[in-house]
Amino acid sequence: MKIIKGGVCAAKGFKATGVHCGIRNNKSKKDLSLIVSETLATACAVYTTNLVKGAPLIVTKNHIANGKAQAVICNSGNANTCNADGIEIAEKMSELCADALSVAPSDIVVASTGVIGQPLNIEPIANGIPELVKNLSANGSDAAAEGIMTTDTVKKDIAVEFTVGGKICKIGGIAKGSGMIHPNMATMLVFITTDAAISQEMLQKALSSDIKNTFNMVSVDGDTSTNDMVTVLANGMAGNKEITEDGEDFNEFMKALNTVTVSLCRMIAGDGEGATKLLECKVSGAKDILTAKTVAKSVICSSLLKAAMFGADANWGRVLCAIGYSGADVDVNKIDVSFKSNKGEICVCINGAGIEFSEDKAKEILLEKEIEILIDLKDGDACSTAWGCDLTYEYVKINGDYRT
Amino acid sequence: MKIIKGGVCAAKGFKATGVHCGIRNNKSKKDLSLIVSETLATACAVYTTNLVKGAPLIVTKNHIANGKAQAVICNSGNANTCNADGIEIAEKMSELCADALSVAPSDIVVASTGVIGQPLNIEPIANGIPELVKNLSANGSDAAAEGIMTTDTVKKDIAVEFTVGGKICKIGGIAKGSGMIHPNMATMLVFITTDAAISQEMLQKALSSDIKNTFNMVSVDGDTSTNDMVTVLANGMAGNKEITEDGEDFNEFMKALNTVTVSLCRMIAGDGEGATKLLECKVSGAKDILTAKTVAKSVICSSLLKAAMFGADANWGRVLCAIGYSGADVDVNKIDVSFKSNKGEICVCINGAGIEFSEDKAKEILLEKEIEILIDLKDGDACSTAWGCDLTYEYVKINGDYRT
Repeated sequence: MKIIKGGVCAAKGFKATGVHCGIRNNKSKKDLSLIVSETLATACAVYTTNLVKGAPLIVTKNHIANGKAQAVICNSGNANTCNADGIEIAEKMSELCADALSVAPSDIVVASTGVIGQPLNIEPIANGIPELVKNLSANGSDAAAEGIMTTDTVKKDIAVEFTVGGKICKIGGIAKGSGMIHPNMATMLVFITTDAAISQEMLQKALSSDIKNTFNMVSVDGDTSTNDMVTVLANGMAGNKEITEDGEDFNEFMKALNTVTVSLCRMIAGDGEGATKLLECKVSGAKDILTAKTVAKSVICSSLLKAAMFGADANWGRVLCAIGYSGADVDVNKIDVSFKSNKGEICVCINGAGIEFSEDKAKEILLEKEIEILIDLKDGDACSTAWGCDLTYEYVKINGDYRT
Repeated sequence: MKIIKGGVCAAKGFKATGVHCGIRNNKSKKDLSLIVSETLATACAVYTTNLVKGAPLIVTKNHIANGKAQAVICNSGNANTCNADGIEIAEKMSELCADALSVAPSDIVVASTGVIGQPLNIEPIANGIPELVKNLSANGSDAAAEGIMTTDTVKKDIAVEFTVGGKICKIGGIAKGSGMIHPNMATMLVFITTDAAISQEMLQKALSSDIKNTFNMVSVDGDTSTNDMVTVLANGMAGNKEITEDGEDFNEFMKALNTVTVSLCRMIAGDGEGATKLLECKVSGAKDILTAKTVAKSVICSSLLKAAMFGADANWGRVLCAIGYSGADVDVNKIDVSFKSNKGEICVCINGAGIEFSEDKAKEILLEKEIEILIDLKDGDACSTAWGCDLTYEYVKINGDYRT
C-alpha cells in the first residue's frame, strides 16, 4: 500500500470541484462542492447520533437506502438544520444537482455545514450549479476540499493505492472538521471514494467497523454535531473481482480504508478550532478494548488537560483525574503516564504517583506540534488511540462570535 | 427564613479562621483554614466519585465513619493527591490539629485543594497550626473562606436563620470552586455548619438528597475533581428538639440547607475559572426529572454554547445541538428556547425551529452578568436547573499554566 496524490479524485472515474456561489459573503471563500462518479456507485454512510439532525442527513439517508449513489453535493456556510423548510431545501438542492448531471435525484448525497438555525437560500446554490458542473475535473479534489471548509484552516485530503486480487485499486477522501467535533457513531463531513468493486453490504460493514476506532475516537470540543456524516462511494472501475465476503481481499480493503480514515482523523484533530497542537492519547495495558477506549476518550476530552497542553505544562495530575472520572474500571494505583514528541519521551507518573522528572525536558517535549500522551494501565493487553487538540484562546475567540 | 451574616460562624458555637502558613509562596494569600465547634458535632459528608481520590478524602471518610466530628482543617495550594505519602501526611495534619485543639484526631475533617501530584510538605502546616488556633474567632468565616480559595476570585459564604419547633436555628457555609468543577455525587470544597439538633441519619439524608439538585447540577469545565467534598457539622446548640424523622421540622431544615447550597452553587458557577457570566439553564416541561436534569446538564456543559455566551451571541442552535446529543429522550420538534436576564426575555426558537427575533435585543440581554437559558420541552411537568459559566480566554490562560 502506498500514499498517492489526488484525494477524492484519486480513484478511477471520479471528478470533483468547488466554487464560490454566494452562500458566504466572502467571495474568496468557496462554499459549494461537487464529487461525481462516472458510473452509478455503491454507497454507504454513517450519521451523527445527535437527535437534532440536519435536514440533508435525512434526505441523504432516504436517497442511499437502495445502496446506490452517483454524486455528492455539499455547501458550507449554512448547516440547513433546525429550519422549518430544511427538508424541502435539501430535496431542491438534490434535484437541481441531479438535473444538471442528468442523473436521478435519488442518486445524490446532499450535505451542508455551517451555522445552525438560519434558513438556507436555494438561489445561490441554483445559480452556482452550472459553473460547478462545468468545472468538474479529475484534478478537482483540492477545490472540493476547500468548498466544504468552515473554520478549518487547512484542507484535508489523502489517498492510497492498494491491490485486490492482482488489480490496483485506489481509495481517497476529503474531510472538514474544526469545531463541534465529538463523534458518536459518526460525525464530521468525510467523503471517501474508491474504484474498488465491493458489495454494499461489505462496504457498510467496513465503514461501520472502521469508524469505531477512527472518527469516533476524535474530539475537538465534546460537542457532537447535528450535521455530519461519513460517506463512501465505490464505483468498481478498478476491475477487481467484487469483494462480497470476509477474507484477504476484504482485509486489504479495510487496511486501505483505515489508512485513509486515520490520516483524516489526525488532520481533523490537529486542525481543531483554534488548535496549536495535535494530541494523540495512546492507552495500552487495558483489560479490554472498552476500557482502553473509555480512558483514551476521557483524557482527550478534558478541558483542563487540553489547556495544560496549550501551555506546554506537564500537568499529569489532570491525566490521572480524567482517567479517574472516565467511568472505566481501572486500578489507579497501577497507572504509568509518559509524554512523547519528536523531542523525546519522558515518564512523569508511575503506579499512579508522581516521580521526579526534568521540567525543562518536559517543556521541550510539549512545545512540539504533535504530542503523544502514553498511558499504561498495566492490567491487560487491550489498546486504543484517541485524537484531539489543545484548548486555546483562539477556540474561545472563534466560538464567542461565530455567527457574526 | 432569612439570610444573615456570619457564614460558617453564623451558627451558635462555631469559630473559624484562616492564615498564611507558607504552602504558597505568595505571603498575602491565606493557605490554611480551620473551623471548630465548641462541642462534638454530628457530621456527614459526600465525596467525589472520581476513582482517583485525594488522600484527605480517604482519611476524612474514616474519621467521620462514627458520624461525629469537631473541627475541619483545610489547606489550599496543594491537593495532596497522587502522592505516595498522601495518607500519612493527611493523618499527620489531623493529628497536629487535634493536639492543638485537645480533641481526638478521629474527630478532625481534613481537606486539601490545589495542584495534584506534588508532595505536600507538612512543615508549614505544623508551623501554622498554633497561630491558626490562636486566631480562632466567631468572626472568622471570611478568613476561613479565603484560606480555601485556589483560583477563586471572590470568597463564597452564606448563612440563613430558620425555626424548628419554635427554636431559632442557623445554618451557614463557605465554599471554594473555580476549576475542575463537574460534580458527580459531590465535588468542590463546601463546609457547612449548623446549630440545629439533627440525627446523623437525617443529616446525611438531607445532604445526600439536596446535592442531587444543587452541587451535582453545577459544571464549570466538565472535569470531575479528585479532591472535593461537602461536609455538614451540626452541633445542636440551638436547643431544638432533635430532628430524627421526616416531617415539618426536617422539611424546614431541608429548606434552609437548600437555600445555603443553591446560593453557594450560584457563587461557584459565577466565579468559575475565567468566567464573566453566571449561566442558569432552566428546563421545564420534561416528561420526568431525569430527562430535565440530563438536558440541563448537557446544555450547561457545552463548550460551544459557553463560548457563545462569552460573546453574547444568541446562537440557540448550540442549545438544540446540546439537547440532541444529551442522551435524553426528547421530541426535538417540540422544543422552545428563550434567553433571559435583567434586561428582559427573548424567545429565539419555537418547536425546534428558529423564529425571527431582534438580534439587538438579544445582544442587550446577553451582555448582562447573569443569563438564564430557558428550555421548554412541552412534554410533561418535570423541571430542573443547572448552573455554569461562560468559556473565556481567561479560562485557557489560567489552565494553560496553572502549576507555574
